[in-house]
Amino acid sequence: MKLLREKIELEGIVLNENVLKVDAFINHQMDPVLMKEIGKEFAARFKTEKITKILTIESSGIAPAIMTGLELNVPVIFARKRKSLTLTTDLYTSTVYSFTKQESNEITVSKDYICEGDHVLIIDDFLANGQAAIGLAGIVEQAKAKVSGIGILIEKSFQPGANEIIAKGYRLESLARIESLKDGKVNFAPKRQIQNI
Amino acid sequence: MKLLREKIELEGIVLNENVLKVDAFINHQMDPVLMKEIGKEFAARFKTEKITKILTIESSGIAPAIMTGLELNVPVIFARKRKSLTLTTDLYTSTVYSFTKQESNEITVSKDYICEGDHVLIIDDFLANGQAAIGLAGIVEQAKAKVSGIGILIEKSFQPGANEIIAKGYRLESLARIESLKDGKVNFAPKRQIQNI
Repeated sequence: MKLLREKIELEGIVLNENVLKVDAFINHQMDPVLMKEIGKEFAARFKTEKITKILTIESSGIAPAIMTGLELNVPVIFARKRKSLTLTTDLYTSTVYSFTKQESNEITVSKDYICEGDHVLIIDDFLANGQAAIGLAGIVEQAKAKVSGIGILIEKSFQPGANEIIAKGYRLESLARIESLKDGKVNFAPKRQIQNI
Repeated sequence: MKLLREKIELEGIVLNENVLKVDAFINHQMDPVLMKEIGKEFAARFKTEKITKILTIESSGIAPAIMTGLELNVPVIFARKRKSLTLTTDLYTSTVYSFTKQESNEITVSKDYICEGDHVLIIDDFLANGQAAIGLAGIVEQAKAKVSGIGILIEKSFQPGANEIIAKGYRLESLARIESLKDGKVNFAPKRQIQNI
């Protein structure tokens, strides 16, 4: 997605060979017009999948997910990173390890909101090691619903998550793919052409 | 706001005299069409304030804030509840006590995104004791920016936050005001007519 790549080039900061900081427009300050365009793009890419629910994880996934939900006219659920005191119903849970924060979080979704027969689109901001996306997919499958696709804003293609997701047979759509962050520069990979072979 | 009150009546669950659960459309599952209408409503109510930034707090504030930002065409910042490892710049901080969770969180905003001269609209989902809204206002003032208003989805008018915010001289707009949650029922208060006397 050209607009996202341009934003990354203009406002992204390469902290080191593994970390791209996008706090100016995704992770802390957010650009609502960019988020709306991202929503339109995901809706277009997944329009044939008969999506019934969108699932993301707090916090940075919420803005692109709600814009995608608006385009597809379906509810959006955000998984929580720890149990809430007012969520008293039964929960689906997955354990997700964050390599950035070097800690495990339990992520939870109420059983009220994902059901057998749902076609779920998973949305997240970054794909690196794939832990969050795979954890969310695990929750969808606990609910006996279908993972209809995984939509990612920024895929770090040099880390193992993308290949792992494809190997599991999920449809993956990444709006920007990064081949490397060497020498303080963002090098983009081309759009992925062949999927789920 | 009629649409929000109807949603609360239809899908809100009164857990006890103090707690209204709105996980079906705001706090866990989110209704994107409702969020878009909320964005339009806040934009209309604050259109004369020359808003330059919107500030909210993760996670439930993000969806209504991004929709308001889209309507007003301004960036949206979400305060974090704990320090992030990739936020290496200087931070504004406030300490916020959550009566629901019975714990204090440090909330942080990077100094990069709120500046002197900004007219900031604060958005949050609930107003009960006012701790989060007042903490966010404190961050805006640390930045020598102006708190142009506080927009709340659901105000629990029987708790002290609303009066405290008005006493501090902030303009408060709540889309639904709840007078009581007695006998398992939501009793709404009328729209606030007079402000900041």
